[in-house]
Amino acid sequence: MNLDKLKFDRGLIPVIAQDVDTKRVLMLAYANEEAIRKSIETGFAHYWSRSRNKLWMKGEESGNTQRIVKIVADCDYDALLYLVRQKGNACHTGRYSCFHNELFGGKDRDG
Amino acid sequence: MNLDKLKFDRGLIPVIAQDVDTKRVLMLAYANEEAIRKSIETGFAHYWSRSRNKLWMKGEESGNTQRIVKIVADCDYDALLYLVRQKGNACHTGRYSCFHNELFGGKDRDG
Repeated sequence: MNLDKLKFDRGLIPVIAQDVDTKRVLMLAYANEEAIRKSIETGFAHYWSRSRNKLWMKGEESGNTQRIVKIVADCDYDALLYLVRQKGNACHTGRYSCFHNELFGGKDRDG
Repeated sequence: MNLDKLKFDRGLIPVIAQDVDTKRVLMLAYANEEAIRKSIETGFAHYWSRSRNKLWMKGEESGNTQRIVKIVADCDYDALLYLVRQKGNACHTGRYSCFHNELFGGKDRDG
């Protein structure tokens, strides 16, 4: 696993988590290098919590884990996409996706 | 259009652009408040270019514009999702999606 190309901003890189089955975008979070390595080693999505300032396995408390299927970097290696199998809901509010506050457009797409 | 709830980090908020038809994640970029307002006013996705330090309409040079269908904020209002109709390819490399550099998992999902 060569992460040398990745460009971290103050040690972090933004990560989009997408449900590989439904294709829904679940959340945007941040990872440091350790979080990426842990995600690959364990098969479960890890992130860096900026509010708690610690490494964090998604679902470690809620049980709503994310199985890593694929990790893809973007063209300039400063953003990642985790393709995951989401267990339960991704959002701490109990919604399936964190993206449920509509600012513009059609009605809420989050069931 | 009330953007008061949005949390900008040094004036910017990360934006995920997703193709509303194929559900593919196309790119991660950043917007300031003006970029969001311009996106809504014009119906075309606008961003803030961090490298060029200027407001930027996606496709203004390439013609590969993004029609805004919906804009959704996440649970804590510090990330946005633009649901778009992508004209041509989203990536400056000529790929459909910017996310085409696989770090881990199955073979490249970008055609």
